[in-house]
Amino acid sequence: MAATLLSALLVEILIPVAALIGMVFALIQWFLVSRVSVGGGQASINNGYDQSLLDDEEGYDDAEAVALCAEIQNAISEGAESFLITEYQYLGIFMAVFSVFIFLFLGSVGGFSTKWVSCKANPSELCAPPLANALFSTVAFILGALTSTLSGYLGMKIATYANARTTLEARKGVGEAFIVAFRAGSVMGFLLAANGLIVLFIAIVLFKLYYGNDWTGLYESIAGYGLGGSSVALFGRVGGGIYTKAADVGADLVGKVERNIPEDDPRNPAVIADNVGDNVGDIAGMGADLFGSFAESSCAALVVSSISSFGADRDFVAMSFPLLISSAGIVVCLITTIFATDLFVIKSVKEIEPSLKRQLVISTVLMTLAIAAVCYLALPSTFTINVVGHQPKVVKNWKLFFCVGSGLWAGLIIGYTTEYFTSNAYQPVRDVADSCRTGAATNVIFGLALGYKSVIIPVLAIAVAIFLSFSLAAMYGIAVAALGMLSTLATGLAIDAYGPISDNAGGIAEMAGMPHKVRERTDALDAAGNTTAAIGKGFAIGSAALVSLALFGAFVSRAGIAVVDVIQPKEFVGLIVGAMLPYWFSAMTMKSVGKAALAMVEEVRRQFNTIPGLMEGTVKPDYKRCVKISTDASLREMIPPGALVMLTPLIVGTLFGSSTLAGLLAGALVSGVQIAISASNTGGAWDNAKKYIEVHRIMLAALVQRVLMHIRLL
Amino acid sequence: MAATLLSALLVEILIPVAALIGMVFALIQWFLVSRVSVGGGQASINNGYDQSLLDDEEGYDDAEAVALCAEIQNAISEGAESFLITEYQYLGIFMAVFSVFIFLFLGSVGGFSTKWVSCKANPSELCAPPLANALFSTVAFILGALTSTLSGYLGMKIATYANARTTLEARKGVGEAFIVAFRAGSVMGFLLAANGLIVLFIAIVLFKLYYGNDWTGLYESIAGYGLGGSSVALFGRVGGGIYTKAADVGADLVGKVERNIPEDDPRNPAVIADNVGDNVGDIAGMGADLFGSFAESSCAALVVSSISSFGADRDFVAMSFPLLISSAGIVVCLITTIFATDLFVIKSVKEIEPSLKRQLVISTVLMTLAIAAVCYLALPSTFTINVVGHQPKVVKNWKLFFCVGSGLWAGLIIGYTTEYFTSNAYQPVRDVADSCRTGAATNVIFGLALGYKSVIIPVLAIAVAIFLSFSLAAMYGIAVAALGMLSTLATGLAIDAYGPISDNAGGIAEMAGMPHKVRERTDALDAAGNTTAAIGKGFAIGSAALVSLALFGAFVSRAGIAVVDVIQPKEFVGLIVGAMLPYWFSAMTMKSVGKAALAMVEEVRRQFNTIPGLMEGTVKPDYKRCVKISTDASLREMIPPGALVMLTPLIVGTLFGSSTLAGLLAGALVSGVQIAISASNTGGAWDNAKKYIEVHRIMLAALVQRVLMHIRLL
Repeated sequence: MAATLLSALLVEILIPVAALIGMVFALIQWFLVSRVSVGGGQASINNGYDQSLLDDEEGYDDAEAVALCAEIQNAISEGAESFLITEYQYLGIFMAVFSVFIFLFLGSVGGFSTKWVSCKANPSELCAPPLANALFSTVAFILGALTSTLSGYLGMKIATYANARTTLEARKGVGEAFIVAFRAGSVMGFLLAANGLIVLFIAIVLFKLYYGNDWTGLYESIAGYGLGGSSVALFGRVGGGIYTKAADVGADLVGKVERNIPEDDPRNPAVIADNVGDNVGDIAGMGADLFGSFAESSCAALVVSSISSFGADRDFVAMSFPLLISSAGIVVCLITTIFATDLFVIKSVKEIEPSLKRQLVISTVLMTLAIAAVCYLALPSTFTINVVGHQPKVVKNWKLFFCVGSGLWAGLIIGYTTEYFTSNAYQPVRDVADSCRTGAATNVIFGLALGYKSVIIPVLAIAVAIFLSFSLAAMYGIAVAALGMLSTLATGLAIDAYGPISDNAGGIAEMAGMPHKVRERTDALDAAGNTTAAIGKGFAIGSAALVSLALFGAFVSRAGIAVVDVIQPKEFVGLIVGAMLPYWFSAMTMKSVGKAALAMVEEVRRQFNTIPGLMEGTVKPDYKRCVKISTDASLREMIPPGALVMLTPLIVGTLFGSSTLAGLLAGALVSGVQIAISASNTGGAWDNAKKYIEVHRIMLAALVQRVLMHIRLL
Repeated sequence: MAATLLSALLVEILIPVAALIGMVFALIQWFLVSRVSVGGGQASINNGYDQSLLDDEEGYDDAEAVALCAEIQNAISEGAESFLITEYQYLGIFMAVFSVFIFLFLGSVGGFSTKWVSCKANPSELCAPPLANALFSTVAFILGALTSTLSGYLGMKIATYANARTTLEARKGVGEAFIVAFRAGSVMGFLLAANGLIVLFIAIVLFKLYYGNDWTGLYESIAGYGLGGSSVALFGRVGGGIYTKAADVGADLVGKVERNIPEDDPRNPAVIADNVGDNVGDIAGMGADLFGSFAESSCAALVVSSISSFGADRDFVAMSFPLLISSAGIVVCLITTIFATDLFVIKSVKEIEPSLKRQLVISTVLMTLAIAAVCYLALPSTFTINVVGHQPKVVKNWKLFFCVGSGLWAGLIIGYTTEYFTSNAYQPVRDVADSCRTGAATNVIFGLALGYKSVIIPVLAIAVAIFLSFSLAAMYGIAVAALGMLSTLATGLAIDAYGPISDNAGGIAEMAGMPHKVRERTDALDAAGNTTAAIGKGFAIGSAALVSLALFGAFVSRAGIAVVDVIQPKEFVGLIVGAMLPYWFSAMTMKSVGKAALAMVEEVRRQFNTIPGLMEGTVKPDYKRCVKISTDASLREMIPPGALVMLTPLIVGTLFGSSTLAGLLAGALVSGVQIAISASNTGGAWDNAKKYIEVHRIMLAALVQRVLMHIRLL
């Protein structure tokens, strides 16, 4: 085997340095955001900014408005924090139980033995005792769960810190507001990417001290990191999603539809819950989700390569290939961000979306070069990948370039397709908007049709990436293709988090009674944000599809299944039942959203009917009760769908065996991708169809389209 | 091999006799329906019925109303006929081209040779020349297409013949009206089942004169019958579906929502198109659809058994097992029908649904006994089924009882589940109706969630049937399981066709200005009809899933594929792209419905705005223009989705090979089942949620729920 050009020492320096750079850059962005003063009690901290600049428009004296902004921001931040803390308590209990389960399960396999045993693959070497594997896996699991939790929490903190600041900057102009929202998004993106990388790296380095030459044991234990990350992601996504949609639908159904008051009007009792929802669902939930995909794909790649020639050759540099790709990604995203924040200045509303799209292109092009460099420097020219039940696959290093690259570019295609189908700049959303002229029925038909249609190109892109990377480097190829798609994670998360921040900024502008012009600007930011949020979901779904396939590969390898033949009864039955599971899951989550929204509606109506002076604005509504309804509902309702996902494989595997389980996983994977992409884009389009309508002042059948947009299916 | 208890001669008598019984029974039902006089020009033909009975209620002098009924019936009948004739002209061209293609393709395989050749399986015997195979396959294809066309056309004729008669009988009582509608449904059910069987049987007998001992060639040619049937079904279903939904949505959006006039008000220009739609979509389309499934599953079973021991042993009785099952089905359904029409009399609205449900149970229980008898009489005690790439499967005759029976009972479970999820007697629809109190958004959420949830049990039922029959008798088991589900076709179709007939009856009552009480009764019939229509769709989807799997099995056998391993790149890519196809297809058809509905809305608005006296009812609207819009739209729009379905396998197979194609078919199958069941039940529930609301007079957010019910996704 040829050696790699990089030395192990250099790798051990480069990875933490890249993570450090990411963190420092995030801190700089945070500092820049913090320079916008939100006045009030915080003004003294955030002075040093030319306050007169904020006041020079429309002769608007905004001392009171600024104070109000600060107050609202605090309310949102407190609501979000209180929800997340409660959610994390639930998750903490779950994680504790699950950790014990993992430890006992893995430990019991080897009878909790503490003796080093001779390795199966190479009996002349010693492998770590089962008890150690159980212990380290559990530690890695907890680390993954904690990092995921931290990522979500930090994202929420920065988002609620930046929302009012975006509102205030919108008084100066759309460009200024855009930069604040985007910088805040970057803080989250870079912190998450850097955190995920450094924790994983440190875990590997520390675990290695114990494991020594037992690389298979080392990286199998490390795989717990991915499981921890994705477990938190599942509950965070479902819980946050139910929260945000229940609040969103509930707030608008009574406020906009029945009472005819504007969106985000402070008289609406559910308005704080609505804004909290954006932060716990679209920020914290999405952060945990993408971190989960990142952790799972890194771990899948590490496990496969540890049992292949990288592991057998003790080639630490080549083993670290997945981490080096992510490290390069951080640097690439840093350069990309500077294009948005410093090199191009946004002067008008029309430039927002192109600027965000440019971020995708720039990061993808630069990353392609970076991948080539990493492949050249960190990989031996030839190596082998083990495939269970088949001959090991001999791979040349340039082939991995195509694997990672195909994932990366599939991500770009998904991003562009999502943008086309959910932005009001293009025909599809305009068709949906037009269809509103004839009412809800045609709107629903066009909206669903749009979502279904939007599946075609992303699925073909994913299919090409899968085919290429699968053919070139088997399951290792799939895992690094997923990493390729996630390599520009920092940028992807930045433009994704930008969405809910802008949404909140608009809400705060309305609640604080900002001038109409400010609200117009935040609306423009928000419209672009709906699209970027959909793009973010697209990336999440696309990478999840690749990661799931890689994990599926890991499963069949471990289960010793050489063939999953769907013209056998067990496998086919698994396949068709698996394809049903995403429907079952969606039924649960949608029903939960519906029920919680109904409860919210009742409460909002009750407040409007029983609190005198509420409609006149002389009395404040009871925001906290609405927050509590969303909180309770989401915490209660996240358990059944979570249990469905966690228990089904266990039950099916135990009762019907691994062939049926393999079919089930394949079916759930291919069916889930479709339903996820279509639902996400239908939701994004409905959201933006409304914006388009409001902008163009088309005559509409009164209320219908305004409520439909909220059916953003998690 | 053991001999069968039946003799070949007896089989040759029993099958045509059963078909004849079915036809005679259908004619008797038709005669009974025709005894209801619709007055007007037709009164002289339909005398002999005590007219005074019709007039003894409410002192209502209805000579004018009856004349109006006759007139409306004629208009609907003419509209439906004119559409079907035009559609069949398009289909005729397509079928002609496709016939030539089949002939040339099959003929060219063997260089249009006219020489008998030694058989591949048994070189000591002679097999028919390729030219003969090409010719007979083409003839079978044309026969299948014609039978399907005829089935749809006849169904439409009887439905449009019975709709006004149901209205008139509703003046006497709900029981009387129910019996007319149900008898008319039976005419269609029995004619279709008997026709399908007899044409297939005659074709086999005649082809056999030429083929002699070449049974493999014989039954492979016969398979063209299935292809012809399902090709017509595809276009009939799509074209009819687009027609009916465009007219339905278009009529209600302007009439009910904007102009606030009742459903089916004669002032609405689209009202005739709407009623025509029920007949061409839900009657003719559904008839062609179920005939297609019946023909395909019979042919799949015949082909598999011809290359197994039945064919090798020249055991004509055992070969005829699928046809004998269908023959027994006709007799069973006949007995079942008598329960509904003569043994139980419906006296109140509440008894309608139980009576229809009882039909399902009675036919299933009786059919179970009949299957046992056929298995005992027509099968040798032991035989073998060939499986490509594996050892032939040795099967005992009682095992086939479980194969057929599992399909039959899975059908019953699907029927009951569908009823539970779409009938306003149960919680799911009531929840959807309740959710309307808070508007369209929650309605859409609950409706979609209901559809998703309704997938679980049917898919599990299908999975169990597949597992059982697959394990017991390989692909032959699957084919006869499909036949089992379709064995009670006559009853299934009767209760299915009952729905649109009742719907039309209600429309005619409204248009003819019948008393409120009559409309109430037809509404009750219609509510039950929405459920039974959904049950019919459930059967169609369930049997289509089984049939598709059987055909999939036939495909992999013919392509010589022993394994479809989805952890290979080609197969997996096929799987994920295949799972996307139903979404693409749905996007096309829904967009088509949406576009046609928009055009319809424009036209209806135009007429209301430009025709003076229309709203006052002094001037008649231009019904024909609306009929033309639906006609043109559906004929134009049925081509792209049809082409997608017909061409994709061809293109994928040619470009990417049969492994990818196998994956594609498996993916499309498992994903299509889910989306079909959920969409069908969401639509059924929305339809009935409206009825429930109207019955219970719950206070509603004005218009929303009234239009949403129309999104009955094809």
